[in-house]
Amino acid sequence: MSEPDRNPSLKSERTRLRRAHKKGVYDRETLYALLDDFPLCHVGYIENGVPYVTPTLQWREADRVYWHGSSKSRAILSAAGQPVCLTATRLDGLVLARSGFEHSVNHVSAMIFGTPAIIKDPDQKRSHLKRMFDHLYPGRWEQLRPMSEAELKATAVIGMDITEASVKLRSGPSDEPDKDRSWPVWGGTIPISTTTAQAVPDASNQVPLPDYLKQFSFCRAFETERRANGQTAD
Amino acid sequence: MSEPDRNPSLKSERTRLRRAHKKGVYDRETLYALLDDFPLCHVGYIENGVPYVTPTLQWREADRVYWHGSSKSRAILSAAGQPVCLTATRLDGLVLARSGFEHSVNHVSAMIFGTPAIIKDPDQKRSHLKRMFDHLYPGRWEQLRPMSEAELKATAVIGMDITEASVKLRSGPSDEPDKDRSWPVWGGTIPISTTTAQAVPDASNQVPLPDYLKQFSFCRAFETERRANGQTAD
Repeated sequence: MSEPDRNPSLKSERTRLRRAHKKGVYDRETLYALLDDFPLCHVGYIENGVPYVTPTLQWREADRVYWHGSSKSRAILSAAGQPVCLTATRLDGLVLARSGFEHSVNHVSAMIFGTPAIIKDPDQKRSHLKRMFDHLYPGRWEQLRPMSEAELKATAVIGMDITEASVKLRSGPSDEPDKDRSWPVWGGTIPISTTTAQAVPDASNQVPLPDYLKQFSFCRAFETERRANGQTAD
Repeated sequence: MSEPDRNPSLKSERTRLRRAHKKGVYDRETLYALLDDFPLCHVGYIENGVPYVTPTLQWREADRVYWHGSSKSRAILSAAGQPVCLTATRLDGLVLARSGFEHSVNHVSAMIFGTPAIIKDPDQKRSHLKRMFDHLYPGRWEQLRPMSEAELKATAVIGMDITEASVKLRSGPSDEPDKDRSWPVWGGTIPISTTTAQAVPDASNQVPLPDYLKQFSFCRAFETERRANGQTAD
């Protein structure tokens, strides 16, 4: 927290949670753990007065979040220089209470608000793409068939400062009132995970599985913590 | 396809895919399988000229999609009567090619565009909530502690016709050119699943696990198909 221009709380009038206050957390640690652990996100932008929500993979570099696509992608061209909301959601479980009203969903989600900019400099663009690979598959970028100038030109990279965000986190059993707990219906949680299975080589592959794929998983930190807390059946 | 006002193609100028044409499918069967199999969605709406993307659970009834929340929820109040994009995304795998450019993501995603309306009639509202439960947990609604009038009032249900949507689907190994396939780096796919573990009773539970939870899973149809095709390691 040494950077002077940082907003460690990430809080603003826009991100102040008006409902479900107890679910609101604003710290960068929770947000960055989510972004680093779970690459899928949904980017919201406006085109001709209509909202669009596009799924994509994000990656973080220090206090900025990046995503990429075709340099002709409408999702990227329409988002550049305009207000954007990038939302990442990790679904952790369904919470079954004795009343419909108290059912809930365990999850961590973050909405990041900002105005993203396209990375124009080709060297910077290449360097950001390498960072995406370094995060997912350490060491792979250097082994790939190098990116051609035409491929680099056909790829757009877009990034946004992380200065304003709201993070929601819900975990554990239901918060239902004690008077409901004896109602004779099953109460508890269904754990949900986004899991990766062992990598499957394609028909052309002649190369042994690299170490970075032997250990590959999403949400590893979270799953380790959850198993330690006895919150899964395995 | 007997309803005269139905748009079976779901296609419009807005949903015509300008990029990645081969990924575009417009049929209701694929869209409805996704919605029914995978309840998480992200709803995009505009407030004060800024896009917001809120994660929530959706459910489908015939040719309409519904979601719910607090009756004071900003996400619901701001979306009602306004243009909305509801996006559902099932992440199926990471595709590793021999070049960075040809890496891809296996997934099914759908963007549904429309103008949702809040369900005001209390009986209708209750009936839609029952439908959500019936879809996830058949038979559970009738066993729950009945919803009070105050709880019903505190809950908002919102729904939208499914008339305009784009569905994207990518599966299988990379489409990279043959000349790249001998490059000496690992090529293949990392399967990704959203899975549910066995339900965990809470501390107050005295009730045996009901049948609808013994068989509960997300994405069951998809996982069955994938296992049959040998696309997972298990």
